[in-house]
Amino acid sequence: MEKIKGLINAPFTPFYENGEVNYEPIEAYAKLLANNGLKGVFINGSSGEGYMLTEDERIKLAERWMEVSPKDFKVIVHVGSTCVKMSNKLAAHAQEIGAWGIGAMASPFPKAGRVEELVKYCEEIACGAPALPFYFYHIPALSGVFLPMLPFLKAVDGRIPNFAGIKYTFESIYEYNQCRLYNNGKFDMLHGQDETILPALAMGGAQGGIGGTTNYNGRVLVEIIDAWEKGDLERARECQNFSQDVINVICNYRGNIVGGKRIMKLIGLDLGKNRTPFQNMTDAEEAAMKSELEAINFFERCNKF
Amino acid sequence: MEKIKGLINAPFTPFYENGEVNYEPIEAYAKLLANNGLKGVFINGSSGEGYMLTEDERIKLAERWMEVSPKDFKVIVHVGSTCVKMSNKLAAHAQEIGAWGIGAMASPFPKAGRVEELVKYCEEIACGAPALPFYFYHIPALSGVFLPMLPFLKAVDGRIPNFAGIKYTFESIYEYNQCRLYNNGKFDMLHGQDETILPALAMGGAQGGIGGTTNYNGRVLVEIIDAWEKGDLERARECQNFSQDVINVICNYRGNIVGGKRIMKLIGLDLGKNRTPFQNMTDAEEAAMKSELEAINFFERCNKF
Amino acid sequence: MEKIKGLINAPFTPFYENGEVNYEPIEAYAKLLANNGLKGVFINGSSGEGYMLTEDERIKLAERWMEVSPKDFKVIVHVGSTCVKMSNKLAAHAQEIGAWGIGAMASPFPKAGRVEELVKYCEEIACGAPALPFYFYHIPALSGVFLPMLPFLKAVDGRIPNFAGIKYTFESIYEYNQCRLYNNGKFDMLHGQDETILPALAMGGAQGGIGGTTNYNGRVLVEIIDAWEKGDLERARECQNFSQDVINVICNYRGNIVGGKRIMKLIGLDLGKNRTPFQNMTDAEEAAMKSELEAINFFERCNKF
Amino acid sequence: MEKIKGLINAPFTPFYENGEVNYEPIEAYAKLLANNGLKGVFINGSSGEGYMLTEDERIKLAERWMEVSPKDFKVIVHVGSTCVKMSNKLAAHAQEIGAWGIGAMASPFPKAGRVEELVKYCEEIACGAPALPFYFYHIPALSGVFLPMLPFLKAVDGRIPNFAGIKYTFESIYEYNQCRLYNNGKFDMLHGQDETILPALAMGGAQGGIGGTTNYNGRVLVEIIDAWEKGDLERARECQNFSQDVINVICNYRGNIVGGKRIMKLIGLDLGKNRTPFQNMTDAEEAAMKSELEAINFFERCNKF
Repeated sequence: MEKIKGLINAPFTPFYENGEVNYEPIEAYAKLLANNGLKGVFINGSSGEGYMLTEDERIKLAERWMEVSPKDFKVIVHVGSTCVKMSNKLAAHAQEIGAWGIGAMASPFPKAGRVEELVKYCEEIACGAPALPFYFYHIPALSGVFLPMLPFLKAVDGRIPNFAGIKYTFESIYEYNQCRLYNNGKFDMLHGQDETILPALAMGGAQGGIGGTTNYNGRVLVEIIDAWEKGDLERARECQNFSQDVINVICNYRGNIVGGKRIMKLIGLDLGKNRTPFQNMTDAEEAAMKSELEAINFFERCNKF
Repeated sequence: MEKIKGLINAPFTPFYENGEVNYEPIEAYAKLLANNGLKGVFINGSSGEGYMLTEDERIKLAERWMEVSPKDFKVIVHVGSTCVKMSNKLAAHAQEIGAWGIGAMASPFPKAGRVEELVKYCEEIACGAPALPFYFYHIPALSGVFLPMLPFLKAVDGRIPNFAGIKYTFESIYEYNQCRLYNNGKFDMLHGQDETILPALAMGGAQGGIGGTTNYNGRVLVEIIDAWEKGDLERARECQNFSQDVINVICNYRGNIVGGKRIMKLIGLDLGKNRTPFQNMTDAEEAAMKSELEAINFFERCNKF
Repeated sequence: MEKIKGLINAPFTPFYENGEVNYEPIEAYAKLLANNGLKGVFINGSSGEGYMLTEDERIKLAERWMEVSPKDFKVIVHVGSTCVKMSNKLAAHAQEIGAWGIGAMASPFPKAGRVEELVKYCEEIACGAPALPFYFYHIPALSGVFLPMLPFLKAVDGRIPNFAGIKYTFESIYEYNQCRLYNNGKFDMLHGQDETILPALAMGGAQGGIGGTTNYNGRVLVEIIDAWEKGDLERARECQNFSQDVINVICNYRGNIVGGKRIMKLIGLDLGKNRTPFQNMTDAEEAAMKSELEAINFFERCNKF
Repeated sequence: MEKIKGLINAPFTPFYENGEVNYEPIEAYAKLLANNGLKGVFINGSSGEGYMLTEDERIKLAERWMEVSPKDFKVIVHVGSTCVKMSNKLAAHAQEIGAWGIGAMASPFPKAGRVEELVKYCEEIACGAPALPFYFYHIPALSGVFLPMLPFLKAVDGRIPNFAGIKYTFESIYEYNQCRLYNNGKFDMLHGQDETILPALAMGGAQGGIGGTTNYNGRVLVEIIDAWEKGDLERARECQNFSQDVINVICNYRGNIVGGKRIMKLIGLDLGKNRTPFQNMTDAEEAAMKSELEAINFFERCNKF
């Protein structure tokens, strides 16, 4: 199976003031991302508030992203939910509309307590789109499912034909590397923590990844990989350190889904609010965040239209 | 607001062998429950695999329970989900079809990290059915939301007009009692752990509750309350101890949702399988569970048609 | 083995302003406790900051409590530590000086991950005082060891000859009751949460317990048991509710070890400060706590000299 | 303050068959470590079962390591315990005998819940050895204290004069890097996870570290740093991957403290058993572990006399 090279972005979902999905900005959004070096999108995931969308909204968002995405821009649809039946249907829809791939995080309810339960969950979803690569999205801090990934890979290997790999959003570079090496590197281990792209590159991985702060800081994150490949370690470090500076700021504003989404407005693409139970930023918080970003010269290095 | 007296049952959702919802057994199911002293049902909750159902299935299940339920049998619809927009719509539907009340557990994704987030989540759901009492379903072991309930009650008091109380499925009888006493007992604290009805009665609560093992052991659980009210402490203890014996058995078979659902087949009402990621019982497990139940003479005391 | 009836108190350890142990107040302390209905003391435990004391201090404290305790006042010495070798020695010392019994909580480092590890830990300590009853002190919120107690009892039964029972400081009245019923009630299940004595009595247990708020609120806690035995449920409830009011206050001041210890000063027995890493109360906090206690008329009902 | 370059080893504590400390092998042990490129030892820590030793044993071990260590071999004494008073005394002793430095992990009982509590804990220990550098040993998986390290560094900076840095045994290379960059790199961030030395080097750190598997796999781990410094990335990766292979094996045998200690016997330095509550390896387990190590050719690359 083809392995992803470069960075895929996990986009936010635009909302109108009244809380309904706003499909308008998506065309400009796709263009912005492509212009700044991103290779595709992983939509309806955690950054996209996918779990807070209705089935219908998820379908329409997938269709819209497919319509507006530039050629060779990969659209991967996150189809995970607490209802496998719906996820399977969303997978089939993604295949119908020609999406590049699908993905699903572990259901947060009920949490798989054993590897076998997680395998079965993925299997019943992946078979809905047999022609597409399926990525498991490992993000235990959000899903609450802390199962070990190497036994999981061993269990899916030979059982889920379209299993492509893991979007790995966890701190253990040890486990990440062990998964990467498994079965002669059979599976695609997409790096999923923007703050540690460089260390993962050094270990031998991270040639492909899915980012959340790539929405606004994609140029710098892409440059980490470029600089590393050119052998410019100092530049790679500088970019990685800068990306951590940016993450330090959003950590003060409820993280990427809330704080990061508001940064999009600050760089010129207003995506509106967050859905409950996220608590939206106040204007005062927005102004304070803007100051913190200015202090690190973020607006000079951020994604540009 | 009226407080619930007696025990409400959280029913399982019947499935066909192919995994589709089976609406057929519900009429007999409602009758069985009413015959054995239960005062109503809390449908589409954790026992009902509500989070694993599609929106459409949840709607049809609510309609079916309304059609077949005896007069004065309370139908409370659990409408919680990770998508507040859908939950609000399910709440409105419950009101339209004349349900007695609604409820919602805390969303497992994203988890409310502060009381205010949880209040807003409940508020946006409860307002979908303004004429119905809304119950928050506190079950932190499943939802992962461990927020303190007394500050939560203080925050909803005066803010959510149809907030009725809490289905309290947690071990702290101290917190349960403090919530019960709050504002002169304003809120209805429904006890939600079948293994500790008696201790909660002693503390002054538990006159109303929602059970999961009431599906098959309702007569014994109802008798705990009856015996206590008659002052027969020894009988109440014997019944509570017996109910713990039953719970000891299901703990060996993946708990009430899996093991308990299979007991329904053993007492004569086959409700089929569980949805993924639950792992269904094998025939050998069923036989072993049956033996353990026979050893405590369960089939003599269980719910009867 | 004899089962304990009534309430044992877990005393605080008095310190001088310079942080050294102050053995002076212990004589008055023992008298105060006996005067207010307590049946003994469980020393050097969590309330006594036992883990923050040197071996030598623990030995001297045990000796002092033995010297000053009234006849028939049970002195139980907590000998648990992260070093089994030292705990075994402390156990032997307790036996030498004629203590009534010994106890140990699970070591917080390293945490026993399996029942067998915990059994071995207890075994190596208990054998240091073969003539004394050994109590396991189950307090998972502090020790971090959340192992199930029924399998633990099954494992120690017949293996640790002087194993007497468990001081059970956890919320599960279900597990508490199952342990109580095990092997025809062979083991002594000491109730260890002052906020739920009444519910545990109703379930059939709690005839003996070890309290922390008994230091200052012993009269009221003793009265719960007395009222229950006389069949005066309303009085028992009133006392239990009052004890929860008191606990509500100390929860605002870093709990019993810090806030509760300072209450001793307010009722006339200044025991000094807490050891690091506990953060001592300021004078302003003390005054605020005093006001909160006055508001519930605590000083009328507290322990009296 | 001088920053440590190269790898320090956390030695195991040798025990006789009867469970008493065996001071004999320490001379050969120190020589072995120095011969294989280690720069010193961090004694009486988690690998050394320091929390399971008596005060007297800890003192004698420190004295013995001082006596036998080669010139310029750094002896750092872990003095942490649940009793600050004892730790302070151990710190003073370490200074008296001329140790190079001291360290302490967060107390597992009671766990510091706020940064201030942890600072105070470190402060009261560090001041016992004012002439020695003090390292905080951050190992939340064992101590249970998950406080953020950047705020901790800010709080100790300017307050604890001999605070040198952190032995960082946690997965977050992001936090590690932020601590490393703090205040122009003022503090010494010792890397503490043998499985990720290379990624940390790439990020700009890991020039000094403290290892546990360095006891037997020190040559390979030292080579990671050497190869990186020479610009030989492929060799560095190969060594890091090999070190992960070794760690994969010990994970099957209860980790480094149990499994790793037994490897010492297999390479020719029998250090005896582990103290309770660790469960010692059986002969069958030892044989199985040996086979797994042979399968990766461990004995060709391990530390040599």
